[in-house]
Amino acid sequence: MSELISKTLGAIQPVLQSDLDRAQEHLNSLTKPPGSLGMLEKLGQRYAAIKGTHTPRIEQKSILVFAADHGVTEEGVSAYPSEVTPQMVFNFLSEGAAINVLARQVAAEVIIIDIGVNHQFDSCPGLVHRKIAMGTWNMTRGPAMSRQQAEKALETGIHSAQACIQKGTDILGTGDMGIGNSTSAAAIMSVLGGKDPEETAGRGTGINEDTLKKKIKVIERAIENNQPDPDDPIDVLAKVGGFEIGGIAGAILGAAAGKTPVVIDGLISGAGAALALKLNKKVSDYIFTSHRSREPGHEVIFELLDQSPLFDLGMRLGEGTGAALGISLLEAGARIYSEMATFQQAGVTDKTIGS
Amino acid sequence: MSELISKTLGAIQPVLQSDLDRAQEHLNSLTKPPGSLGMLEKLGQRYAAIKGTHTPRIEQKSILVFAADHGVTEEGVSAYPSEVTPQMVFNFLSEGAAINVLARQVAAEVIIIDIGVNHQFDSCPGLVHRKIAMGTWNMTRGPAMSRQQAEKALETGIHSAQACIQKGTDILGTGDMGIGNSTSAAAIMSVLGGKDPEETAGRGTGINEDTLKKKIKVIERAIENNQPDPDDPIDVLAKVGGFEIGGIAGAILGAAAGKTPVVIDGLISGAGAALALKLNKKVSDYIFTSHRSREPGHEVIFELLDQSPLFDLGMRLGEGTGAALGISLLEAGARIYSEMATFQQAGVTDKTIGS
Repeated sequence: MSELISKTLGAIQPVLQSDLDRAQEHLNSLTKPPGSLGMLEKLGQRYAAIKGTHTPRIEQKSILVFAADHGVTEEGVSAYPSEVTPQMVFNFLSEGAAINVLARQVAAEVIIIDIGVNHQFDSCPGLVHRKIAMGTWNMTRGPAMSRQQAEKALETGIHSAQACIQKGTDILGTGDMGIGNSTSAAAIMSVLGGKDPEETAGRGTGINEDTLKKKIKVIERAIENNQPDPDDPIDVLAKVGGFEIGGIAGAILGAAAGKTPVVIDGLISGAGAALALKLNKKVSDYIFTSHRSREPGHEVIFELLDQSPLFDLGMRLGEGTGAALGISLLEAGARIYSEMATFQQAGVTDKTIGS
Repeated sequence: MSELISKTLGAIQPVLQSDLDRAQEHLNSLTKPPGSLGMLEKLGQRYAAIKGTHTPRIEQKSILVFAADHGVTEEGVSAYPSEVTPQMVFNFLSEGAAINVLARQVAAEVIIIDIGVNHQFDSCPGLVHRKIAMGTWNMTRGPAMSRQQAEKALETGIHSAQACIQKGTDILGTGDMGIGNSTSAAAIMSVLGGKDPEETAGRGTGINEDTLKKKIKVIERAIENNQPDPDDPIDVLAKVGGFEIGGIAGAILGAAAGKTPVVIDGLISGAGAALALKLNKKVSDYIFTSHRSREPGHEVIFELLDQSPLFDLGMRLGEGTGAALGISLLEAGARIYSEMATFQQAGVTDKTIGS
């Protein structure tokens, strides 16, 4: 394992129970019945404990969108052709995609990283050039990438998170673009969650019943031919992963090492989070889930994290769209924590009847 | 029925299916697989159809918080004493309550209306003075208010919505403050939903098991003694309602008559919405639910509307806190509708493989 990866894994500190307890005490002093804001209070509590402050704020927000192509699209597993990956990258850069719109609403910056798109982006203002290859190989015929490339994907993610944190980002979100990546993510979820591909494969961008059956067989073949080792997440990433999934996993590790909360999106981000979690389970303290995707494989990350999704709006787009909405809920939790008056400040009776 | 109420009821027009279809067509032209943003697309669709525009925007947002007291608190049904109602009104006015914080985040104005608080607010900048009485009567001993007062509460709500719409509000939210009001709201839900008080009464601000048992008996007695007529919502409001619940019902009617979407909050707003719906079922086209409250009686409004809640964060505070978060989801839907690029604009392949 590269020095950067092992150093990052070693730097991740768990959130202290004493900090969580202190945060809970503060929340109970605010002008509302204790616990009456439900999950918003839980989000504010964990956020404040991570930041180690009694006035947590979420001002700078960054959503990292990793884009890459997948050799497995040769097998006809996706509803859209591979050309859509670079086309959507251009759409991101001209601010016309869903993630741009939702990030604008929540005042988050969107950072687009080419970590392996099958297109030569020559002069592209705004694009972060970190291409590892022109897409992965077809995982049904051998590993999707070399072990060295898998490590490079993780390192790219770590660097991306570090760059944001150095600039003052309070919170990170993860997103993805890559035609074919729900096939790769479902394969990762099958291996790490110990589930049949039938349980993890979904309709992605909208494939029909026949293509779904083919997709399941493709995942089965990829796992059968590559025999990824579930106890070695880098091996799993190399054999059935994608560059953007590795980037997301690395970004999560970098965020956790830098004591920065990271909000994950749907299936693809979930697969990245599952890899990060297998590399160091302490990252779970820094991961905040957002929505429950329509993709069945997404479930694995909720099981591994023992966290529930915050909301379920039937979304299945990726790009970080769910993460953007999740960031705004975390902001609500942090604001509740920092901006509400206490019973004492407001002169409101805090003694309940009979107590 | 007063002229204002019957005129308002008569002015409510259903949203046209043709407008919804046109909106759906536009959503399908945007750079995402059709339907992949789930409920956000549904919200954007209905919002655009209501507004009758292809560039729907949510700029001015107003949350109406109606505050009132309840005579039934004499029976010991609440965890907090009645003094907390005016104390919280002062907290709202100094911007220290949860609704102030969340409204600030979503850039909504908060309008606080004293429709029946048991306190004389003499000079209170920012407070809208519409007091009908110093709280309701104890509904276990007779009607909570007169029929005339019930109509006045509805009219106050209609006027409040109209005032916002005249000022240019794009979207309304509803909220409440009133110690004891979950008892009244549960009674309304029992009558209108045909459910036993055991199914509608909850722990409100946090009562214990014994007080919950007492609360159920109190609701049973109030219904038994008053015999509210489920087919006459004004009778139900007068006999077991509250001034703030009538205000909310009126605001929903005023919003619908003014073709303005209205996002409802938890149990109390749900009871107001149930009354509005019984007065004219066409209001359902303008009502957007937000969260599912922890209060069991809240379920009745989802059944009556045949709508699901957008999210469930285990909240049970009221004040309009859930509505504030719901407004931000509607804004996300409207922005997706107005701000995303089409396949054609972005030069993205919109033909799926095999189609």
